[in-house]
Amino acid sequence: MPAKTPTLDPPQRVLLGPGPSDVPARVLQALAAPTIGHLDPAYLAIMDETRQMLRDVFRTKNELTLAVSGTGSAGMESCVVNLIEPGDEMIVCVNGVFGTRMRDVAQRCGATVHSIEADWGTVITDQQVAEALQAHPKSKVLGIVHAETSTGAHQPLEAISRLVQDAGALLLVDAVTSLGGIEVRVDDWAIDAIYSGTQKCLSCPPGLAPVSFSPRAVAAMEARQTPVASWYLDMSMLRNYWSADRVYHHTAPINMTYALRESLAIVLEEGLEDRIARHQLNHQALRAGLEAMGLQWVPEHSLTTLNAVYVPDGVDDARVRSRLLREYGIEIGAGLGPFKGRAWRIGLMGHSSSQRNVTLLLAALETILSDEGIAIDGGAALSAAAEQRR
Amino acid sequence: MPAKTPTLDPPQRVLLGPGPSDVPARVLQALAAPTIGHLDPAYLAIMDETRQMLRDVFRTKNELTLAVSGTGSAGMESCVVNLIEPGDEMIVCVNGVFGTRMRDVAQRCGATVHSIEADWGTVITDQQVAEALQAHPKSKVLGIVHAETSTGAHQPLEAISRLVQDAGALLLVDAVTSLGGIEVRVDDWAIDAIYSGTQKCLSCPPGLAPVSFSPRAVAAMEARQTPVASWYLDMSMLRNYWSADRVYHHTAPINMTYALRESLAIVLEEGLEDRIARHQLNHQALRAGLEAMGLQWVPEHSLTTLNAVYVPDGVDDARVRSRLLREYGIEIGAGLGPFKGRAWRIGLMGHSSSQRNVTLLLAALETILSDEGIAIDGGAALSAAAEQRR
Repeated sequence: MPAKTPTLDPPQRVLLGPGPSDVPARVLQALAAPTIGHLDPAYLAIMDETRQMLRDVFRTKNELTLAVSGTGSAGMESCVVNLIEPGDEMIVCVNGVFGTRMRDVAQRCGATVHSIEADWGTVITDQQVAEALQAHPKSKVLGIVHAETSTGAHQPLEAISRLVQDAGALLLVDAVTSLGGIEVRVDDWAIDAIYSGTQKCLSCPPGLAPVSFSPRAVAAMEARQTPVASWYLDMSMLRNYWSADRVYHHTAPINMTYALRESLAIVLEEGLEDRIARHQLNHQALRAGLEAMGLQWVPEHSLTTLNAVYVPDGVDDARVRSRLLREYGIEIGAGLGPFKGRAWRIGLMGHSSSQRNVTLLLAALETILSDEGIAIDGGAALSAAAEQRR
Repeated sequence: MPAKTPTLDPPQRVLLGPGPSDVPARVLQALAAPTIGHLDPAYLAIMDETRQMLRDVFRTKNELTLAVSGTGSAGMESCVVNLIEPGDEMIVCVNGVFGTRMRDVAQRCGATVHSIEADWGTVITDQQVAEALQAHPKSKVLGIVHAETSTGAHQPLEAISRLVQDAGALLLVDAVTSLGGIEVRVDDWAIDAIYSGTQKCLSCPPGLAPVSFSPRAVAAMEARQTPVASWYLDMSMLRNYWSADRVYHHTAPINMTYALRESLAIVLEEGLEDRIARHQLNHQALRAGLEAMGLQWVPEHSLTTLNAVYVPDGVDDARVRSRLLREYGIEIGAGLGPFKGRAWRIGLMGHSSSQRNVTLLLAALETILSDEGIAIDGGAALSAAAEQRR
């Protein structure tokens, strides 16, 4: 080791990948506030505020709403591990990386998993769900991804929720890339368990996983015959830690809670409706611009927060992403699974979803793709994007 | 929600509880550096630096050394869940909250647990370990707490390590309250799995769990017949995420990694030997001062980082802690389990272990205990503490 380690000096990026998104200065400032004890009355007040803001953003009155001390994947695991006991049946909808992951998590928890499969980039249909529920009537939980970050597909949930409810099962939803950017209505849609991450549409650094459980989900947890396999994620203890009793469980990530509180405050100050509309508008502008350049969308039902487009024929995927990063400091995401090397994933999430970023990306891509030999009508992309704002 | 949420303004505390400890400004500044992508080449370099510094602080060459994306308790769970398969036998040493917790975690992982019990505040003897290993020769793992935060007991490990090795078992160590403040020698002491937390002697905010696994532990993981029960903590995947291949697993807590890197840099710049000596000296000064006030130590083998002392007879535990917090902004910890209401836990960890803090605490306690009716020889505590530094 050198006597003095060089100062940390990460580059200033424009984060238009699948997450993290750009973090506002106000959130970074909150992150760096003085660390205090996790049982300090001042911290307890911050936890309470954060929890109420989480309920507002989830649009729920669920008592059991909190931030798990891990990333979005820990949120997924906490939902599954608390609801599933060995031998329980669970239906998992698989049409991308995160449905596949949920199936893996459920199997590790000892579930007998029935998969509903759909091609990557498509969504699960109501009929598929109806058939699966009929074929597996003892299923305790149906898990589905609202915003499939690996493909950009936007899964409609309302009709599916009614089917799941009618079948007496619990609905578990992955809202990692939707919460705070796309409509998510936990109570109206009768979602029983939901998890998200902080680094997507909430524009907080990664590290916490907001979760919420309905009274039905809590009743299912209380009726368990076996302990939750994970001590760290056991909601029966986390509930007490986040309650007025503050029964010691672990040491909460104090500074990350500061940042989450600030990012939720920003979401609520903007207003959920306005924020969702902003994501919609910037998505439309990006879409019009990229389509004017000849690019094609991967999913028919696209998220507004994560835009998956095919890499044009003859274009070197990695070289374009590398030039965007090196020359412009712009990060976009590579394709995953069947889309590896074939698609880009462009995030317009939270603070990153702005007219400025859409314009910059379109202009940079126009230059780079022209260099790659793609025939582009100069300026057409920016005009098409601007047209969407009129 | 109000239109504008009040600015976050946590009080500036002096953190002398069982954690978190005071975080240096330099670490808070690193925490607030711009968030970048978790696959950004600049971030990969930061992960590599952090990992090498973790090895240096653990005093190990273990390839599999990294920071788990959760708090110290997630570190405990990751060590147990990766080494234990259902039906495996594990010996757990229980002499406080964290040994009790380890037993609970091991049982949830499906281990058949054999406990070695000792009174809270005492340490586990070599003979107890030898007998347990003889009684349960098929034990795969022996788990023990090096620094029992609930009692302040400092567990010697070297002789126990030899016994565990001779028995062909793996040694799993909780170093949450020792790493970076008390001697911890992973390779010299043949420790096979070890976990810590960031918010104790490393003086980083809570949220990450440094872990390290020996080649023998890795071989045991590779010989598993069943998948690791936790997807989130599965080292076979985390290894690949932290390797040169960077196989996507989850989104690392970027900013927390910045902070950990900075806190490890501070540890290594001070030097482990000097840092351990500083903890030793401040502990001696505190001890001399408190004993001059008539206070008595709980454990015979005391940690230097966490000092558990009995609350003097007739003194209201909660009132004293509340006055320390309200009047001086000093946090100390309450007793746990059998010591609830009967002991205080005074942390002198990392950045909090300073002459200034020892002096302030002794002076403040002298005032408050005098108000509580304890006869104190005014100034004796400060003199006794100062004497230790001559």
